[in-house]
Amino acid sequence: MRVITFGELLLRLSAPGYNKLFQRGSLDCTFCGGEANVAVSLSNFGIDSAFITKLPNNDVGHAAERALNEFKVDTSRICCGEGRMGLYYLEKGASQRPSKIIYDRVNSAISIASIKDFDWNSIFEGADWFHFTGIDPALSQSMFEITLEACKVAKAKGLTVSCDLNYRKKLWSSENAQKAMKVLLEYVDVCIGNEEDAQMALGIQIENDVENANLNIDGYKKIAEKIQKEYGCKYVAFTLRESYSASMNGWSAVLCDSKSFYLSKKYEIQLVDRVGGGDSFAAGLIYGLITKMNNQQAIEFAVAASCLKQTIEGDFNRCSVEDVLTLMNGSGNGRVQR
Amino acid sequence: MRVITFGELLLRLSAPGYNKLFQRGSLDCTFCGGEANVAVSLSNFGIDSAFITKLPNNDVGHAAERALNEFKVDTSRICCGEGRMGLYYLEKGASQRPSKIIYDRVNSAISIASIKDFDWNSIFEGADWFHFTGIDPALSQSMFEITLEACKVAKAKGLTVSCDLNYRKKLWSSENAQKAMKVLLEYVDVCIGNEEDAQMALGIQIENDVENANLNIDGYKKIAEKIQKEYGCKYVAFTLRESYSASMNGWSAVLCDSKSFYLSKKYEIQLVDRVGGGDSFAAGLIYGLITKMNNQQAIEFAVAASCLKQTIEGDFNRCSVEDVLTLMNGSGNGRVQR
Amino acid sequence: MRVITFGELLLRLSAPGYNKLFQRGSLDCTFCGGEANVAVSLSNFGIDSAFITKLPNNDVGHAAERALNEFKVDTSRICCGEGRMGLYYLEKGASQRPSKIIYDRVNSAISIASIKDFDWNSIFEGADWFHFTGIDPALSQSMFEITLEACKVAKAKGLTVSCDLNYRKKLWSSENAQKAMKVLLEYVDVCIGNEEDAQMALGIQIENDVENANLNIDGYKKIAEKIQKEYGCKYVAFTLRESYSASMNGWSAVLCDSKSFYLSKKYEIQLVDRVGGGDSFAAGLIYGLITKMNNQQAIEFAVAASCLKQTIEGDFNRCSVEDVLTLMNGSGNGRVQR
Amino acid sequence: MRVITFGELLLRLSAPGYNKLFQRGSLDCTFCGGEANVAVSLSNFGIDSAFITKLPNNDVGHAAERALNEFKVDTSRICCGEGRMGLYYLEKGASQRPSKIIYDRVNSAISIASIKDFDWNSIFEGADWFHFTGIDPALSQSMFEITLEACKVAKAKGLTVSCDLNYRKKLWSSENAQKAMKVLLEYVDVCIGNEEDAQMALGIQIENDVENANLNIDGYKKIAEKIQKEYGCKYVAFTLRESYSASMNGWSAVLCDSKSFYLSKKYEIQLVDRVGGGDSFAAGLIYGLITKMNNQQAIEFAVAASCLKQTIEGDFNRCSVEDVLTLMNGSGNGRVQR
Amino acid sequence: MRVITFGELLLRLSAPGYNKLFQRGSLDCTFCGGEANVAVSLSNFGIDSAFITKLPNNDVGHAAERALNEFKVDTSRICCGEGRMGLYYLEKGASQRPSKIIYDRVNSAISIASIKDFDWNSIFEGADWFHFTGIDPALSQSMFEITLEACKVAKAKGLTVSCDLNYRKKLWSSENAQKAMKVLLEYVDVCIGNEEDAQMALGIQIENDVENANLNIDGYKKIAEKIQKEYGCKYVAFTLRESYSASMNGWSAVLCDSKSFYLSKKYEIQLVDRVGGGDSFAAGLIYGLITKMNNQQAIEFAVAASCLKQTIEGDFNRCSVEDVLTLMNGSGNGRVQR
Amino acid sequence: MRVITFGELLLRLSAPGYNKLFQRGSLDCTFCGGEANVAVSLSNFGIDSAFITKLPNNDVGHAAERALNEFKVDTSRICCGEGRMGLYYLEKGASQRPSKIIYDRVNSAISIASIKDFDWNSIFEGADWFHFTGIDPALSQSMFEITLEACKVAKAKGLTVSCDLNYRKKLWSSENAQKAMKVLLEYVDVCIGNEEDAQMALGIQIENDVENANLNIDGYKKIAEKIQKEYGCKYVAFTLRESYSASMNGWSAVLCDSKSFYLSKKYEIQLVDRVGGGDSFAAGLIYGLITKMNNQQAIEFAVAASCLKQTIEGDFNRCSVEDVLTLMNGSGNGRVQR
Repeated sequence: MRVITFGELLLRLSAPGYNKLFQRGSLDCTFCGGEANVAVSLSNFGIDSAFITKLPNNDVGHAAERALNEFKVDTSRICCGEGRMGLYYLEKGASQRPSKIIYDRVNSAISIASIKDFDWNSIFEGADWFHFTGIDPALSQSMFEITLEACKVAKAKGLTVSCDLNYRKKLWSSENAQKAMKVLLEYVDVCIGNEEDAQMALGIQIENDVENANLNIDGYKKIAEKIQKEYGCKYVAFTLRESYSASMNGWSAVLCDSKSFYLSKKYEIQLVDRVGGGDSFAAGLIYGLITKMNNQQAIEFAVAASCLKQTIEGDFNRCSVEDVLTLMNGSGNGRVQR
Repeated sequence: MRVITFGELLLRLSAPGYNKLFQRGSLDCTFCGGEANVAVSLSNFGIDSAFITKLPNNDVGHAAERALNEFKVDTSRICCGEGRMGLYYLEKGASQRPSKIIYDRVNSAISIASIKDFDWNSIFEGADWFHFTGIDPALSQSMFEITLEACKVAKAKGLTVSCDLNYRKKLWSSENAQKAMKVLLEYVDVCIGNEEDAQMALGIQIENDVENANLNIDGYKKIAEKIQKEYGCKYVAFTLRESYSASMNGWSAVLCDSKSFYLSKKYEIQLVDRVGGGDSFAAGLIYGLITKMNNQQAIEFAVAASCLKQTIEGDFNRCSVEDVLTLMNGSGNGRVQR
Repeated sequence: MRVITFGELLLRLSAPGYNKLFQRGSLDCTFCGGEANVAVSLSNFGIDSAFITKLPNNDVGHAAERALNEFKVDTSRICCGEGRMGLYYLEKGASQRPSKIIYDRVNSAISIASIKDFDWNSIFEGADWFHFTGIDPALSQSMFEITLEACKVAKAKGLTVSCDLNYRKKLWSSENAQKAMKVLLEYVDVCIGNEEDAQMALGIQIENDVENANLNIDGYKKIAEKIQKEYGCKYVAFTLRESYSASMNGWSAVLCDSKSFYLSKKYEIQLVDRVGGGDSFAAGLIYGLITKMNNQQAIEFAVAASCLKQTIEGDFNRCSVEDVLTLMNGSGNGRVQR
Repeated sequence: MRVITFGELLLRLSAPGYNKLFQRGSLDCTFCGGEANVAVSLSNFGIDSAFITKLPNNDVGHAAERALNEFKVDTSRICCGEGRMGLYYLEKGASQRPSKIIYDRVNSAISIASIKDFDWNSIFEGADWFHFTGIDPALSQSMFEITLEACKVAKAKGLTVSCDLNYRKKLWSSENAQKAMKVLLEYVDVCIGNEEDAQMALGIQIENDVENANLNIDGYKKIAEKIQKEYGCKYVAFTLRESYSASMNGWSAVLCDSKSFYLSKKYEIQLVDRVGGGDSFAAGLIYGLITKMNNQQAIEFAVAASCLKQTIEGDFNRCSVEDVLTLMNGSGNGRVQR
Repeated sequence: MRVITFGELLLRLSAPGYNKLFQRGSLDCTFCGGEANVAVSLSNFGIDSAFITKLPNNDVGHAAERALNEFKVDTSRICCGEGRMGLYYLEKGASQRPSKIIYDRVNSAISIASIKDFDWNSIFEGADWFHFTGIDPALSQSMFEITLEACKVAKAKGLTVSCDLNYRKKLWSSENAQKAMKVLLEYVDVCIGNEEDAQMALGIQIENDVENANLNIDGYKKIAEKIQKEYGCKYVAFTLRESYSASMNGWSAVLCDSKSFYLSKKYEIQLVDRVGGGDSFAAGLIYGLITKMNNQQAIEFAVAASCLKQTIEGDFNRCSVEDVLTLMNGSGNGRVQR
Repeated sequence: MRVITFGELLLRLSAPGYNKLFQRGSLDCTFCGGEANVAVSLSNFGIDSAFITKLPNNDVGHAAERALNEFKVDTSRICCGEGRMGLYYLEKGASQRPSKIIYDRVNSAISIASIKDFDWNSIFEGADWFHFTGIDPALSQSMFEITLEACKVAKAKGLTVSCDLNYRKKLWSSENAQKAMKVLLEYVDVCIGNEEDAQMALGIQIENDVENANLNIDGYKKIAEKIQKEYGCKYVAFTLRESYSASMNGWSAVLCDSKSFYLSKKYEIQLVDRVGGGDSFAAGLIYGLITKMNNQQAIEFAVAASCLKQTIEGDFNRCSVEDVLTLMNGSGNGRVQR
């Protein structure tokens, strides 16, 4: 099985430990990005995965590519050219202090890429699944067009298409997001998101109070049904984050197919690094579905995988299938493995 | 508005992470001190603040001054001369293991300063508020005299005077503390402390059992009333720390004016660095009062500010007014700010 | 009082912070080992302690020895020769992600040592206590023989002998463990372990469900009685770890002598580094017994000591008797010690 | 005396030690920039200096400002607004391997600033000297206009104007550089550069072979005379870097006034960090001239100051006047100062 | 063009900076090995390269593989199984203090590999070149046999075979080395080494005094001729290291084909990390020969490449063809590349 | 053979790498001191050595003691009590920038020790050699008296007494130094120093120009003869440092006995850390003399030992006798030891 993901690769510059940005004289640096995170996690699960993007043709771009090579993600179809490396600054929160992310991604190579940079027919050769996120069309008009083109070719070639709605208010307004996402969702088989995404990117609202972490399972059912009805998605999945503080979160998820609704186990996570949690969920879900787990297993796998990711430094989920199954089938009691 | 704070600037040498002192080959180093911490925090809140001290005339003293310049604290009135840089060693505790502080501040430049080193009339030019702490007079007899002189001039020039009682048993006995503090408190408008301070520095006792973190709100009212009656303070504020462990504390505060008693929201804090918590509270309270918040808002601002401080490495509160208001008016759920 | 401990000294290579192994370009390095950890802790408690092992005759072996010298453990009887330095890789877990240990100790100098390398009559000169663990005989057939020889000489010379069962499934099968341990236990006065040890190393089983951390005190009584009856041990002690997650554990212990059963206070520990927890318990218990604390005090001292160890980085318990007594007699509320 | 410098403040992200970029998981981070470096160095020399720029209105911009505050550079006239923080990646060279700089400064706040952002009449109030570099006009057309406006106002108000030619081929072509610089040089009293600058930014060529570090003093005289004749500069100064390798450089300079030519002592420098060497030279020269040293002393001070800078990590020259005089008047033998 | 290299992958644990081993609490860690270093360097030169070895089937082995993936070395033919990860401790020397390497590679997975683990016919499918070193047969008798088998198949399939003699006295005696190497050399087209290798691994001696770094070019000619005559090698290349100190070395090389003798330029290198210097030379030479450079260019490329490697931390040569050509065709003056 | 050294143990806080003090947020920390350095080096040479001092009775003092235990220096006679830990800040120089040391040792436990703290008769039991330095009497009047007492008892008990003159101008004037040192030198058998020491501490002057590193061997002979004549020393040794820069020094030494004059080989050292160079020389000389090397060998051993020390981080000489002999008898070419 081969999965293609498409998006922006970013340099993440994070303050070490629980220091504020620039409090110390160094920044931890890794490369990441919502769609690349999915490719890395799938590759760590043993799935043949490829990542598509455009990178600046300099030592920073080359290093970014090496960061994916390390995990055996196929980078052979990445193109290089004009533009800069998008980046973001991360300050990790603790207790009542929230994490802060400052994006600096304007003029990145991928955001100014041209539709001619990607030959989707050739890229999708031999592939089974295409994954993108709501960040792709948010980056620029050309990125919307490239993503749309990719979706069309993917469907034409019979790939399953998944999309993580991933609404980012710093990138576009809810109005613009809805305009683009409603078009793209026509091509999507598996729609992933959370409550805020549904509201902002698709205009579907329920009465839950996200801030207070009161979760309303019925509401999620209704949103999922709406999405399935309007866009014909086979699967709709939501992550349910209960943010008690920047240090401790509840984490679970739901999955709806056309007939049923599956609620996962909930994990109480002492957070190490929550960035990339949603991406590792998407990767876990794709893995579950592509390997034909039953739906309950698939959502349990996805939520266990993304629970583990949030206990590791960095955006990438470095866990194996075995690690995830151990948690999924075990007690999560964290006894030492000698 | 311009606030003047006066005290000792210290070099803090702390073991990295949760290592014991000298377990690793390096020490993290920052400059700090109860009164300087207040000046830095106020400057970060946009208040014009100046710090007064005496520093050794060498590269260590110069670096200490630069640490305050960074936050735009006015250091132009700091004097230099004989004596060493006071310092302390910090070992951060965790769970049942308490943090340890080893002071090495004997013979510091400020503790051997002379009353002639400070021209308070000129220092207070254009200032609205003077803040000192119980550490000042504890350092030496001359420091008591300098502090008393500063209080007298401050009152004469119409400044508001605040004092954080900050009793330190390694610096002086309760008996000596009371002798000095009772004199100084005559000049104080805003008295800040905790239960132990009231007992040790002022000889006012109630029956609370601090060790067990059982908080007795009525008791605090009585102490506050006593202080107001005896010394004529307009405001008395207490921080209420419930120390469940070295990793997790409850944190709240009370404020009393001549008429009413205001109890703040309580935060359950997963501690990052609790040193400087009281100083950031004092700064928050001064900010609230000097900007004419109502009393409930002022105490909520102070306690939210100091909650945030305890989630950041180092003694300084690096948060802005906006950060504090976000917590104060929000849920403290720590969701990522993108 | 002089205590001799015997075993393997290992190089521990651990991923910094909560990173996965080799996620960052460095590994933290310390020397440790179950029996050495006991010697270091006892030395920190003021007990004259010596550690016996065989080390490779190179700069790594010499550094290992220095690591014990630092804590005044007597290393003068360590011998040097062929073989390598055994080591293990450690990845610290968090929340639902377990810690991982990968041993690389085959062919270590001690595991290929000969019975002629150790003159126990001379080693035990002036000693009062001999401590070994179940890891010793697990390393090799010759190590079983050397350990047996040591036990025989120790008993002959009137030393008290203690053994921490320390079953390690990567080192030997339960069957082989039982074969060896049943022989050695004949010489043991103080037997230390946990439930899994009793079952795997001695074949004594009860119905507790370790994984779910449901503790069955009655069961422990029965195991202890069995051990006392079968092997004539004067004391049997068990640590009771309730592993809620890799970040938070309950920690307590029980001690049985021929007449009574003593249950300690339970600590809820926010873990910093749980490796070496059992060793610090053994050291605490030996300290309590050798200094003639009463049995309840001894088990409280042991469990408080090992609680503190788990809040410190590294395998060694760097706490003093005073630190332990402060926790044992105090509230464990973690207030700053200034 | 008060000096105003104007330009771009950059975030420098450098690989630690002699690693290649992204070889390790962290980057050292400091803020710097040709013109800011001059302001910092002058402030360290005791000169009242202010830095003018436009910064992004986020935590990165605020941190950049704090980096200047630390050295008491007046940042009160910096404006904030749209745009990003310009940055560069630095890989330090060694021996035959050259240092590499990758700029990422497109769309920085200052490069998209408007002429209305700076009120030069008010900025120059009370100032004696204005310093800019050839990087300013290279950033954008608006920056050329702003710089020209600043020059005009500076001359009108009687300030001395200095310019470091600082040709950067990644920013503009020699042709465009000449077009702009020839206009700006009309306002310049003190022109600073090196041979490459003279050729690329002003079109003045001599036959020296820079690559081979053969220095031709006569040639420099001729270039200086040309510049003085064409643009009426009072002083022309050139740094003479003999690059034997990335680890070892010869360093000296020449200064020409209308009558004479002054050649400095030459230092053989074992490089620690050569970036910012030219800026520290400019600061040293401005200091020498503004404090009325004689010309030989001025050039000696400038070259000694910049020699020291190249033995310190980071772009900033953290040395004091005393440090520079000690080298200038001493032997440079590096004996320990106790 | 596709190159296959075969050998042991090692974990390198090095003391940070110029500290002695275990002087600090951490070790820098990278994966490397003579033959893997060649594969990485070739891949960085754009050559399709694959590395063949056997790794332990655990997280350490997986991390080792990822370290090669990062550089796009084909690791798909690496097999996994029993045995440990070989490793070495490195202490970097300085000035008169030599670097120290302590090997700990006994029982590594590759050294106990079986001849059945490698299907050379399939491995060499599509390959043009096979590279091994004298370390391979030194590891064990089975490794000698596997290497011999590889050589036979390589020749049968028409690959060019290169061998770096790489004599290691800690691994085998000169006598045993000669016994094995004389057999293997029958299959070698390109023989690489230094004077000590020729003497110890092949028994060919000349009168040079290596210790004093007096180089005797005529002697090298004679050795090369002997090797060509005895074993029929098409090319013989020697690196000429003049070790003035642990900090400064002269570095050049010679290449002989059947007709001529080519001497390279000499570089005076301020060493950053000299380990892997010989491997990067071999990679440079293979690159030169496989891309049909003329012989002088090939040796210049090889020596420039390996000069650069010695200015970078770690065993891997992270330089590109462009980097090497810039040095080879330039002056090596180390001017900043902006 | 047993050597006793006596003096102050200091905490050294040094800026990492070539940063200025407090440029980065951490300081490297080690414990050291002229006399302790000698004890550590002798212990590393296999000599039974003990260090005598007084330490503060807190965690800092205990850590200081552990730092000596690590190297098996006998610390059992160290006493504890009032006073602080003396310390110094170190900024490592490079090229033309000198290293800077800022002492902060006033009121240290040893400097305020009483003559009753040390029972020299008991301390010298079983000892053969006593070593002190000119820093001891410089610390305080009581330290002069304690040192004098120690000298008297040492001589009475037949120990050899050595003294490193170690003049420190920050501690006392030349006048005071001469007053004390002339008294103490009456008891000294082996006098060690450099030219500046002879002049400042003993008032013996020659015309060498230390600053320019022009060494005048004849001058040294004359000084040595004077010292031998005036004080009856059996041996006088001088280190000859030629400070070309803070990065590169020439290093050699001379030794005079009553009949002859021995000049050592000279090493050109690329410095890693020159602090403690003189102490490692003293230790090397004591080793040479105590083990009955001939005089030429003794001075060669001392200068080779101290050459190596200056290539290692920290004050301690971590080299073994074997390391020193390898350099002394070899070429110092720094070839890798595998």
